Amino acid sequence: MLEQQVEPHPVDSGLAGYVEHELRVYLGRQRTVAADIDEAFANAVTALSDFVLTGGKRIRPIFAWWGWRAAGGDPDDLDTVVPVLRAVSSLELIQACALVQDDLMDDSDMRRGQPTVHVAFAEQHRASGWSGDADRFGLSAALLLGDLALVWADDMVRTSGLGLEALARTNEAWQGMRTEVLAGQYLDVLAQARGAADLRSSEQVSRYKTAAYTVDRPLHFGASLAGADQDLIGALRRYGVDIGIAFQLRDDLLGVFGDPAVTGKPAGDDLREGKRTPLVAYGLELAAKAGESASAELIESALGVEQLDAGLLERVRETLVRLGAVRAVEERIDRLTASGLAALESVTIDPVASTRLGELALEVTKRSY
Amino acid sequence: MLEQQVEPHPVDSGLAGYVEHELRVYLGRQRTVAADIDEAFANAVTALSDFVLTGGKRIRPIFAWWGWRAAGGDPDDLDTVVPVLRAVSSLELIQACALVQDDLMDDSDMRRGQPTVHVAFAEQHRASGWSGDADRFGLSAALLLGDLALVWADDMVRTSGLGLEALARTNEAWQGMRTEVLAGQYLDVLAQARGAADLRSSEQVSRYKTAAYTVDRPLHFGASLAGADQDLIGALRRYGVDIGIAFQLRDDLLGVFGDPAVTGKPAGDDLREGKRTPLVAYGLELAAKAGESASAELIESALGVEQLDAGLLERVRETLVRLGAVRAVEERIDRLTASGLAALESVTIDPVASTRLGELALEVTKRSY
Repeated sequence: MLEQQVEPHPVDSGLAGYVEHELRVYLGRQRTVAADIDEAFANAVTALSDFVLTGGKRIRPIFAWWGWRAAGGDPDDLDTVVPVLRAVSSLELIQACALVQDDLMDDSDMRRGQPTVHVAFAEQHRASGWSGDADRFGLSAALLLGDLALVWADDMVRTSGLGLEALARTNEAWQGMRTEVLAGQYLDVLAQARGAADLRSSEQVSRYKTAAYTVDRPLHFGASLAGADQDLIGALRRYGVDIGIAFQLRDDLLGVFGDPAVTGKPAGDDLREGKRTPLVAYGLELAAKAGESASAELIESALGVEQLDAGLLERVRETLVRLGAVRAVEERIDRLTASGLAALESVTIDPVASTRLGELALEVTKRSY
Repeated sequence: MLEQQVEPHPVDSGLAGYVEHELRVYLGRQRTVAADIDEAFANAVTALSDFVLTGGKRIRPIFAWWGWRAAGGDPDDLDTVVPVLRAVSSLELIQACALVQDDLMDDSDMRRGQPTVHVAFAEQHRASGWSGDADRFGLSAALLLGDLALVWADDMVRTSGLGLEALARTNEAWQGMRTEVLAGQYLDVLAQARGAADLRSSEQVSRYKTAAYTVDRPLHFGASLAGADQDLIGALRRYGVDIGIAFQLRDDLLGVFGDPAVTGKPAGDDLREGKRTPLVAYGLELAAKAGESASAELIESALGVEQLDAGLLERVRETLVRLGAVRAVEERIDRLTASGLAALESVTIDPVASTRLGELALEVTKRSY
């Protein structure tokens, strides 16, 4: 056989399970640390741990792993595999911080079919008949547990068993990722407040809030661990930005058109939260071009409406389809997916990783959940 | 002259200024990073930067510096001094996160004579006539800027120029400090909600929320940078826990008896916030012992009262003095200061550092601000 070996390794195939195992081990150990401080604090840590361990697609660790594999990381090198798994799993703790604090900022009640963290702690306050404001207690608990997840992400990397040189190589990706996701979140909040929704600014939010944090920097982080050169890192990052923005565009479509039974979020949740997504920006732009001010007003009228009724939601959906906004977003997803895949072709990458990154590009941009 | 050289070095004497310089340089660079992402994000970074650079006693960097000096760090070693100054200055960024997010959790309006961050951003929202809830915008901005300060603290250490081995030696102190301060804050919030205020639990909150984070772990961090042995670290940490708890007890006295013109906080602010401090715990315990249920009720009646009137505040103050709670706290401060200083005597420490740590123990436990 002249072809290169392209069989995935067992760790490649069972990645989400390995990630969850490492998270379970780490959080179990941290619960012991917490219990040495105080049992009540340990109970709060259990709530955080349950949040991290129940659900999630583990998409950031998966991209980080494939960044490492793309740069030649060897899954048969057992001395390195476990530290690498720990390091990439830490990204789920940053994600836990982002979700817990996002739910707080958006005042969302439910996540993955469960009460959100601030709501659960407020309910505990009410059920216990404690003093002071229950919602304020929920806010404080969620904020502090989010912070804890954020600092433990660091700690999990530092205690992963990776060598100091490998750790130092990841600084640029790690620092970029964290600053960029916070920048993206701030710009998102600001865009909603300002009511601005031009295409450029809404895609810029996706670039930082999602693409940098979900695909680009995780790949960069993993590739740095393996000591990748700048050409490879550049190609992976170009793939990461394009696929990451396409991932967010798919999310935006699901935020308006998704089935609550599949997405786990209320129907039209993005509209309710007043999100100024590229989908909305396309809608408003196309309405303006067509001289349909009534359509633009209809879309605007649904943004930020807490009690969004099914009739209005349905009319907004129909309008976005009729104006061509949905088609424009789908075409943008297709173009970004193609350019992201082309970036991979420009460099020499481990063939198993290349295949898998190609599949992942399609999975994350075509998903229905 | 047979005595050892005990003249402080110029850096020792001008420490707060050097810390501010390093913070200014770092935050200036980060503002450029932010501006490359988006000018609106850079403006938010300026607000954070102003917050960090205007005021603060720089107490955590100071203890960290003296931890390094105590363990033999040489202020004439110019290759090391600047990286060490950068690393210890990073503690002010963690403190910025703690203050910004504390003010949010407590819904405080003012800090250092200025509107708090969440209040300032809510005011900007109102003044600009933006859409959505102004307070929620303030909450989101403060939460995200707090997170940014927290992750930049890490980044400032990692980019300080310290060697990888020195950085690795600080992991234990760094990890302990961050988990402990979050634990202390959570236990503080929980104690207020539960309305529990026994001495043990209230001093445990001080132990983690303040002592670990303000004195114990900063000393540990600095000493680790210099490669201190376990004996020295142990002695510095015992000093740190005792002086740190005494520091918080002084803060508790100022929180009830302090002059707003000096402390910069409203009179009786701790009572208004319902803080279950050791001072309050002593008051309730002494009232119970004396069979003075009316005094206990009076103290309880002032806890968590948003609009605390001057007459009630004055009666609570008189009651805490008359019951002996103030004297009990002062005696506890004295005992802790003595045991903290004794811990320093148990090991060999650089004489300039020993002298300065002795002075600092008195300064932070006797202050009026």
